[in-house]
Amino acid sequence: MNRIKTAIVGASGYSGMELLRLLLGHPGVELVAVTSRQEAGRALGAVFPRFCKAPGAELTFMAPDPDAIAASGAQAAFLALPHGVAAEIARALLERGLRVIDLSADFRLRDAAVYEEYYGAAHPAPDLLGEAVYGLPEVRAEAIRAARLVASPGCYPTSILLPLLPLLRANLVDPATIVANSLSGVSGAGRKPDLSLLFCECHESARAYGVPKHRHLAEIEQELSLAAGESVVMSFIPHLIPVNCGILTTTTAKLRAGVAPEAVGAALEQAYAGQPFVRLLGRGGFADTKNVTRTNFIDIGWQHDARTGRVLLLSAEDNLGKGAGGQAVQSFNGMFGLAVTDGLQNF
Amino acid sequence: MNRIKTAIVGASGYSGMELLRLLLGHPGVELVAVTSRQEAGRALGAVFPRFCKAPGAELTFMAPDPDAIAASGAQAAFLALPHGVAAEIARALLERGLRVIDLSADFRLRDAAVYEEYYGAAHPAPDLLGEAVYGLPEVRAEAIRAARLVASPGCYPTSILLPLLPLLRANLVDPATIVANSLSGVSGAGRKPDLSLLFCECHESARAYGVPKHRHLAEIEQELSLAAGESVVMSFIPHLIPVNCGILTTTTAKLRAGVAPEAVGAALEQAYAGQPFVRLLGRGGFADTKNVTRTNFIDIGWQHDARTGRVLLLSAEDNLGKGAGGQAVQSFNGMFGLAVTDGLQNF
Amino acid sequence: MNRIKTAIVGASGYSGMELLRLLLGHPGVELVAVTSRQEAGRALGAVFPRFCKAPGAELTFMAPDPDAIAASGAQAAFLALPHGVAAEIARALLERGLRVIDLSADFRLRDAAVYEEYYGAAHPAPDLLGEAVYGLPEVRAEAIRAARLVASPGCYPTSILLPLLPLLRANLVDPATIVANSLSGVSGAGRKPDLSLLFCECHESARAYGVPKHRHLAEIEQELSLAAGESVVMSFIPHLIPVNCGILTTTTAKLRAGVAPEAVGAALEQAYAGQPFVRLLGRGGFADTKNVTRTNFIDIGWQHDARTGRVLLLSAEDNLGKGAGGQAVQSFNGMFGLAVTDGLQNF
Amino acid sequence: MNRIKTAIVGASGYSGMELLRLLLGHPGVELVAVTSRQEAGRALGAVFPRFCKAPGAELTFMAPDPDAIAASGAQAAFLALPHGVAAEIARALLERGLRVIDLSADFRLRDAAVYEEYYGAAHPAPDLLGEAVYGLPEVRAEAIRAARLVASPGCYPTSILLPLLPLLRANLVDPATIVANSLSGVSGAGRKPDLSLLFCECHESARAYGVPKHRHLAEIEQELSLAAGESVVMSFIPHLIPVNCGILTTTTAKLRAGVAPEAVGAALEQAYAGQPFVRLLGRGGFADTKNVTRTNFIDIGWQHDARTGRVLLLSAEDNLGKGAGGQAVQSFNGMFGLAVTDGLQNF
Repeated sequence: MNRIKTAIVGASGYSGMELLRLLLGHPGVELVAVTSRQEAGRALGAVFPRFCKAPGAELTFMAPDPDAIAASGAQAAFLALPHGVAAEIARALLERGLRVIDLSADFRLRDAAVYEEYYGAAHPAPDLLGEAVYGLPEVRAEAIRAARLVASPGCYPTSILLPLLPLLRANLVDPATIVANSLSGVSGAGRKPDLSLLFCECHESARAYGVPKHRHLAEIEQELSLAAGESVVMSFIPHLIPVNCGILTTTTAKLRAGVAPEAVGAALEQAYAGQPFVRLLGRGGFADTKNVTRTNFIDIGWQHDARTGRVLLLSAEDNLGKGAGGQAVQSFNGMFGLAVTDGLQNF
Repeated sequence: MNRIKTAIVGASGYSGMELLRLLLGHPGVELVAVTSRQEAGRALGAVFPRFCKAPGAELTFMAPDPDAIAASGAQAAFLALPHGVAAEIARALLERGLRVIDLSADFRLRDAAVYEEYYGAAHPAPDLLGEAVYGLPEVRAEAIRAARLVASPGCYPTSILLPLLPLLRANLVDPATIVANSLSGVSGAGRKPDLSLLFCECHESARAYGVPKHRHLAEIEQELSLAAGESVVMSFIPHLIPVNCGILTTTTAKLRAGVAPEAVGAALEQAYAGQPFVRLLGRGGFADTKNVTRTNFIDIGWQHDARTGRVLLLSAEDNLGKGAGGQAVQSFNGMFGLAVTDGLQNF
Repeated sequence: MNRIKTAIVGASGYSGMELLRLLLGHPGVELVAVTSRQEAGRALGAVFPRFCKAPGAELTFMAPDPDAIAASGAQAAFLALPHGVAAEIARALLERGLRVIDLSADFRLRDAAVYEEYYGAAHPAPDLLGEAVYGLPEVRAEAIRAARLVASPGCYPTSILLPLLPLLRANLVDPATIVANSLSGVSGAGRKPDLSLLFCECHESARAYGVPKHRHLAEIEQELSLAAGESVVMSFIPHLIPVNCGILTTTTAKLRAGVAPEAVGAALEQAYAGQPFVRLLGRGGFADTKNVTRTNFIDIGWQHDARTGRVLLLSAEDNLGKGAGGQAVQSFNGMFGLAVTDGLQNF
Repeated sequence: MNRIKTAIVGASGYSGMELLRLLLGHPGVELVAVTSRQEAGRALGAVFPRFCKAPGAELTFMAPDPDAIAASGAQAAFLALPHGVAAEIARALLERGLRVIDLSADFRLRDAAVYEEYYGAAHPAPDLLGEAVYGLPEVRAEAIRAARLVASPGCYPTSILLPLLPLLRANLVDPATIVANSLSGVSGAGRKPDLSLLFCECHESARAYGVPKHRHLAEIEQELSLAAGESVVMSFIPHLIPVNCGILTTTTAKLRAGVAPEAVGAALEQAYAGQPFVRLLGRGGFADTKNVTRTNFIDIGWQHDARTGRVLLLSAEDNLGKGAGGQAVQSFNGMFGLAVTDGLQNF
């Protein structure tokens, strides 16, 4: 099999590390370039000792220069860069003929004005928004297949959208009543020397943050609104808990009058029956992050609260897996005509 | 000072252990009896090596015999027993002239029928329900002072009620819109050899449980209804996270039409200004369990979400502290005319 | 490729779970039977939700009946059973023509009397000891290739033997001065409902146990003695630390008079240069369990202390990986003529 | 009672935080000044929300100016500063009439040349070394009582010295055979924004560091040599494990020929029988950090290994408690004629 020559741009953070883990083990991938401004010149195994002796891990970090990346022969590039930085290099790589899977927020929003509202700066490449595909493979497989530029969704959005989209599409719940609470592992906060991320500041700690308007709300509401056919505004409360990775999300919403609870299960089954990475736990099923860490699975259970008329959606994913690197690889598989599960069958 | 002779009945679990910690260091308490069916005959320090050489820790566990407890001279007894078991021994101790602070659910509900609905058995002592006081010291200081029998609130209820009661009393929020998500440390599940509580089953794990009708809902809704002057039905989703202790609760509800967000802060200030164990973090303040572990504090911050009209209440307490042992000692202080902070000034 | 039909006997503990993880993803294996006395009749995915939707995970647990296992067509069986129990079923499976990789202690010791001394019971199958191969693939590749019965080493022994054997073979250190301290994750204590293994009893805890004569000493000293050509008696102190998996071992011993420190590095290099699963970190290299969890690697660094004349060997492995399931699969690969790294390339 | 006016200099790290916790609750202390170059001008409760509403916590951090500290009326100062920095301010405070308890390494070594060897700089105040008292209260109570300047021991040294000193004094073990392995919580590495101390870098990680010549060796060997009456050179291997606080140390040494194992227990009993903060667990007793966290206790068990002739000493302390802040307060109590347990009776 001809393996796809692939680059990871910005590979020294936790998402980059997960991409490395997945792509080094991907049978359809030949990793030809890994970049990091900070680690340029260092061997991959020196920065991440975990990967020493992995086949393919003999690479050396290079600076994120588009010409050098293109010269490596890369046909595809994953970008694990801060928002704002990603757009520029995405454009340069697209111009050099690469297909790009961007894990930043730069191409997730269709409306440059919303980007500016949430990210506090003018959009760095508004002309590319039109062709970017919001990369939820269970929702947009076809568009992903054809895309030059995939905007891989955020970790929180994935855990909220996959359970909720089928319910909105089927008009089962009242969008004005949606409240989502998410618990995230500390890797979601990034790999940076910040006092608040020290072991002793996170261990034996649980805290909410980023309310009432976390940046991920923009893409969540965009996608929910598309599914509902109306503008959706919701509450989202992210929390940090002392695990390395994993997101658990509990979403509640009122069923519309006259909707039978069973319709919830039916809508989920219909949406995800054939999907290899969505595991439906059924009514009364409890998602647990420990079953999904280091996988590309999202587990979804649900419950109906007859007393309040609310449906509860319980979802678990790995913030670095289905919430970042795994989902990006899933899109990549689609873009290059590989089997959707290629390189994602680790458990 | 004459110290109050005190017994702990059922002292071999985590709540019992916290009561031991607090009462061994309480200047107004002489611990005269500790009971445990399982550990009877063993020295306190053998069961809990942490307390070896603590002044007062020379006690030996005895069986929970009411006559023997009374014979120890105890004037007060804390009960850290399973529901159903507590009621019987509470009655026996009351008959022998002791005042009782019960940490179980047996006397928290005013209505024996609700008890039966939630706990699946007829109430073991319905005649005592009339005199039992639901022991939230910030709410019922006066009744606690006079009580023979205090029902100390559950850990989750405390974290939900203290932020929410002032808002309902002032009619600021719509009770039909209340959703509370709580994250609890594993000690809240008790000290029992259960496979699901093993280290490796909880570490790197986050999961919801007990929905949609966790037992604590009964007392939460009872107290909210009393405050609101109408029947309150709400959603409550408890989660287990890998910390030893601590509860973080995020409660959302819609502000009633015309209510200014500032009214939320004002109601909280008015309710708790002089309270030594409630720390108001103000608008935008984030509660963090690591600031309250092993204390009797509850920290409360709040936020307003103008987009959805919801208020967010963020509270943190120690499930074994303000959520169990600390709050019980606070009631005890009130019952015996001690300073409210006696024995609770550890940080 | 014809895949080897394989059974896991005793698959409901943590070692069994790791074997499941590895064999479900092994390209050369078809898993045909998984047994568990306790879980017989339950689907694999119901017992271990992590494996739901994994290809091959449609199996149902069966009782550990040798005829039924043989009837599944299994050519090989991994035994993850308690010592004492394993020997009996090993014999039954060997008689039915299967090749056996036993992860228990039953066939690790050459001398039945030593078994009785350390395990407190007469050896259950002394006649099989002669043919059993102690399965350290880096040391006995040839014998493993031909073996019907491999005794896979214990987790602690692996972490001590691999760094130390080359030094004893080359006569570099004084065997009378060996002291090994090991820190193990809690999964090493097994998956059983024991109060001392509860989350709250292990989290924020570190403790030694099992001194001075932990059972693993028997096999450690057996192998060290073989390498040294003389009887080796050493000190071994195991500790439990709050991680799910991973063993870190620090071994110290005095260099023999006249031995240059560099000889240590040379001996390690010579022993393991071509070995895919031993990563030598060199002089001054610090092994860290986080780099080896869920892999079959053992990382080995070393240091010389000129002040005391001691060499320090620092090794890290996953107690469930190289210390149990991974190493067993490595032996299996050898027995069946597969590439040594097949199924073990996850990082 | 007249409370001692006290200052904490350098109160924004983890040792400073523990001193704050202890001194805010100390009945014989009035905290009059807390300094931090970094946090000067901020309220104590803003930097450490845990202490909000604690009586005495209304203080504001000030810059570490000796005149300002003296002007606060402080009679005593605790220094929780980096080595090198502490000596200078210690001198300035001594000149202003304060008594000083220094938690840094600056005054622990009697020999300025050894300081230079281990700390890489000329000693900043060699003239003060003569009067500084190495503050192990169980060993030097009398000298501490009279001291102007106490050098509080390091966390590792305390956990090694207390079990070992009585054995060396009684000539029971061969000093040339001492090997100590210590496991420390992450707080021991300090409160600084360092990538290697991030939650995700420490959680599910165990690693040794600082071998073969950790700085604490200098003071350990100094004190062991004094006790042995001969020069002691030993091996010390510190490890970092994922707990917030706690040190577990396992020390091994060969018993001298003819010494009965019982002599070990007798020497420990004799040394510490009347000491309130040393808990002897006896032969076969296992120390566990979870029993000593947030206390001033050190737990010591021991075992004899007849096969090797080695004694094993197992000790547990809180690195911030008996290993830092607690022990410093214990010295303070001695210096000012308070009861040794004052302010240290939290469990």
